[in-house]
Amino acid sequence: MTKLFNDPAEFAEEQFSGFLSLYADRLRGVPGGAVALRSGEPQVAVVVGGGSGHYPAFCGLVGPGLAAGAVVGNIFTSPSAAQVYSVAKAADQGRGVILTFGNYAGDNLNFGIAAERLRKEGIDTRIVVVTDDVASAPEEDKRRGIAGDFTVFKAMGAAAAAGLDLDGVERVGRAANAATRTLGVAFSGCTMPGADKPLFTVPEGHLGLGLGIHGEPGIRDEPLPTAEELGRLLVSSLLKEAPDQAGRRVGVILNGLGTTKYEELFLLWNTVSRQLAEAGLEPVDPEVGELVTSLDMGGCSLTLMWLTDELEAYWTADAYTPAYRKQKAGTAGLISAEQQQAGQEAEQAEAPQATPAARDLAQLVLAGLGTAQSTLHANETKLGEIDAVAGDGDHGRGMVKGIDAAVAAAQSAAADGAGGAWLLTRAGQAWAASAGGTSGVLWGAALEAAGASLTDGRDGYAAAEAVDAVSAFAGAMTDLGRAVIGDKTLVDALLPFAEELRAAVDAGTALSEAWAAAAGTATEAADATANLKPRLGRARPLAEKSLGTPDAGATSLALIVTALGRR
Amino acid sequence: MTKLFNDPAEFAEEQFSGFLSLYADRLRGVPGGAVALRSGEPQVAVVVGGGSGHYPAFCGLVGPGLAAGAVVGNIFTSPSAAQVYSVAKAADQGRGVILTFGNYAGDNLNFGIAAERLRKEGIDTRIVVVTDDVASAPEEDKRRGIAGDFTVFKAMGAAAAAGLDLDGVERVGRAANAATRTLGVAFSGCTMPGADKPLFTVPEGHLGLGLGIHGEPGIRDEPLPTAEELGRLLVSSLLKEAPDQAGRRVGVILNGLGTTKYEELFLLWNTVSRQLAEAGLEPVDPEVGELVTSLDMGGCSLTLMWLTDELEAYWTADAYTPAYRKQKAGTAGLISAEQQQAGQEAEQAEAPQATPAARDLAQLVLAGLGTAQSTLHANETKLGEIDAVAGDGDHGRGMVKGIDAAVAAAQSAAADGAGGAWLLTRAGQAWAASAGGTSGVLWGAALEAAGASLTDGRDGYAAAEAVDAVSAFAGAMTDLGRAVIGDKTLVDALLPFAEELRAAVDAGTALSEAWAAAAGTATEAADATANLKPRLGRARPLAEKSLGTPDAGATSLALIVTALGRR
Repeated sequence: MTKLFNDPAEFAEEQFSGFLSLYADRLRGVPGGAVALRSGEPQVAVVVGGGSGHYPAFCGLVGPGLAAGAVVGNIFTSPSAAQVYSVAKAADQGRGVILTFGNYAGDNLNFGIAAERLRKEGIDTRIVVVTDDVASAPEEDKRRGIAGDFTVFKAMGAAAAAGLDLDGVERVGRAANAATRTLGVAFSGCTMPGADKPLFTVPEGHLGLGLGIHGEPGIRDEPLPTAEELGRLLVSSLLKEAPDQAGRRVGVILNGLGTTKYEELFLLWNTVSRQLAEAGLEPVDPEVGELVTSLDMGGCSLTLMWLTDELEAYWTADAYTPAYRKQKAGTAGLISAEQQQAGQEAEQAEAPQATPAARDLAQLVLAGLGTAQSTLHANETKLGEIDAVAGDGDHGRGMVKGIDAAVAAAQSAAADGAGGAWLLTRAGQAWAASAGGTSGVLWGAALEAAGASLTDGRDGYAAAEAVDAVSAFAGAMTDLGRAVIGDKTLVDALLPFAEELRAAVDAGTALSEAWAAAAGTATEAADATANLKPRLGRARPLAEKSLGTPDAGATSLALIVTALGRR
Repeated sequence: MTKLFNDPAEFAEEQFSGFLSLYADRLRGVPGGAVALRSGEPQVAVVVGGGSGHYPAFCGLVGPGLAAGAVVGNIFTSPSAAQVYSVAKAADQGRGVILTFGNYAGDNLNFGIAAERLRKEGIDTRIVVVTDDVASAPEEDKRRGIAGDFTVFKAMGAAAAAGLDLDGVERVGRAANAATRTLGVAFSGCTMPGADKPLFTVPEGHLGLGLGIHGEPGIRDEPLPTAEELGRLLVSSLLKEAPDQAGRRVGVILNGLGTTKYEELFLLWNTVSRQLAEAGLEPVDPEVGELVTSLDMGGCSLTLMWLTDELEAYWTADAYTPAYRKQKAGTAGLISAEQQQAGQEAEQAEAPQATPAARDLAQLVLAGLGTAQSTLHANETKLGEIDAVAGDGDHGRGMVKGIDAAVAAAQSAAADGAGGAWLLTRAGQAWAASAGGTSGVLWGAALEAAGASLTDGRDGYAAAEAVDAVSAFAGAMTDLGRAVIGDKTLVDALLPFAEELRAAVDAGTALSEAWAAAAGTATEAADATANLKPRLGRARPLAEKSLGTPDAGATSLALIVTALGRR
């Protein structure tokens, strides 16, 4: 609901004056709209426009690389011919003017009148009408312009910035429009300033398919789908409308209409991007966010512009406007995610000098990790089933991913002649990066801590060092996880294990014997967690449900230490 | 209302995975959040974080010049210590880590635990808590962090990018927080994904003053004010909380919380900027838009950061993240609005060569414009009153502004030795630029057209040229305005005047006699518009109301041509 205004009749004018004062460093207000302050050589002036209430369209798109000017009408109302004429004259740089706008009767009329007058005064003026909304008519040239306004404006703005002449910019605009398709859905209506009810409503629990950006009727109302279903619907509908000779690369806009938030759009993007990939399409510089809105309307739209090499160059080009900024320099010098991860790992992989004893230890660590690996693989399904009672059932999967990455990293470090401490450090880093989730981070940190407690500079490793490593492992777990005994977590098995191990070794018991005994205690403790209510992870009220099932994390730990004790 | 999701329990995770795939060219997902891909020299790692549902906060702020990493919790829920630890380790570049977040119990706990563990591992880690919300507590250090998160993050991100060491970045962060104050209001609650009602509600027609960004209670509910009243309230409340030794320059954020749209914020900015100026404060690079949101909550907040020279340098510095991009290069080479207008006028002011006859004509034109000027000044109030019946009462003011600018431009052109045609051209340009509104554009275009019809190259100007100039004037009016006789506009007086003038001159009547007679007809026609319903400008249903009052535009024209006829 639009809540902030003074006199509703002055809403459009007042908001525009605030906008102009905010961006006075780069825009100039003229009667009827705004023009960009100039820099560089004269260009063809791309003048966009339409009613207010669609921000960033239209005035938010004025600036280098995009529009030279925007005509600003009243809310959802075409600007007058006089306004168009005034803005176009101010935007003209002597190389001609393109008037471009969505296909609505009022806009066609007023921009058309202005164009006639401009031509009479010797200003070469072309009109490029945007017709991207596949829901509005079967005939391409009768369709409305909605979020596809943006792809067409962007292509022409970049073409003008590249120095093309009027014929060239017009040609690019027509090509961009011919390559652009949009389908939108509405979840809720929008309310004009001062009105006490929305312009239109969508039945509760439904969406309006193909609704226009001013509430024009859509194709039909449908029950509100999941994000996954909606993503499929949008993509499949647009693919049916693909232009002839469509290539594989597409510019994409997943546009929010006002009250549909960025988080929701990001979530929807998961499905949209997957569906596009399955259809063999490659998104280029996708934009997910608000580009053409409709006051406080709930809903979104998907726009595809099938790219030629020329359109791709303009779609990906730099621009800098109040609401849309893109500069290659903004990511200049960035390295790719893979390079960065590799670089970071390489940095960390400088193994410290290892004594012969540390290299012997490395073989023990490697064998131990191998034992853990086969144990976890053998129990993956069982661990998942335990976790599924009160969690999302991914514990077994996560542990297997973690141990596999850990073993691979340790093998690679051992091949480089590293010591056992360093193997554990690398194993921990790899586990955390690969396992995912909080338990992955904890296992990773604990393995790293164990490695750090050992160091690779000693001349021998005895039972005391093993006990310290286990304590360091447990310390990292409790430092970060902050669980205490009785919380129904891995700590319920880990702490008794570590304590009993230390006590037995301190009392002179051989390590292997002490370990096996402690492992037995850990198993009992893990089983005993079946009698505990779980901690309320993810705020799920599953406390009662998991009674009778042991904790998956405690079970994992008990299985591993038991297997290690058998070696 | 949050409408787009699959499993509500997975909302935060799914939206984040969509976000990561969208920005994979500049961010890398790690367990618990995202880190920026690196470029350039190692920097202090500013790691921001908190719950999901506040986009662009927090993951949208990761990138060059801002955060090195963001920890992403569940919706409105602190991330776990393990998540913080994981992101901080990945973001660390060997120069230490700043953990920074809004002051909430859960965040303090989890970021604190992670910091302890990071320090144990030898990573120097500092914590900077944001406490900007003046409504949440009287004591500065007990206050919540809301939109002021952004100013504090931005200052530290820029300081890190500038190469400051950990002590330096921490000092800047503490200074930024000490200089930052925010007050927010809510118009409506926000709905968690999958919930069927909002987390909280604000009574219809009210606002919640000082409400938190998760619906925490505010100071009180108040009746919904106008934008003007709200602007005054926000500014005056913050000024009472100004820090000691506050200077005059302030960084400003007028932040939208979710469903309060950009147009509403721009409108509010009018009042806020005026109030700040009246208080002697100078906004520096104000940001108006969504920076810290709260799902689909309606509302906004005002943040002021009182700037020192150092804070100003960091506040205005470049940044490039998914949601926040600012680059001086983006406006490089732009000239100021004043320079541009002056340049454009200078370009246009190259008067064509004028014959002696054209220079004589210039004196006539100047005298005629002077007559129009005194006539309009004398009738300004009357014209405003007529307009007020069915319009906004600014017709008299607009005409006076237009004619004053026109006379000044014509005088300046005459002083340069220009001819009468050029005087009219310049007068028209100046009128359009100064009068505002559609009528200003029409008068400007009509005067320019009259000038273009005359040209300054003739050896003499006779009655026929005057008639043609009037026709050109009328042609521009009808070309652009598209009004026809009977529409209750200026055209009702203008067309009879132009036709009668042409007919009389064609029949051999002297120009002065013909003009006076035509002016009489124009006056009658203007008076007759009192019997017409107006055209429905601005969609106002005032048709009946203005019956009995003549049209203001037609009256203006009749007054002017009558005064000109008397000379």
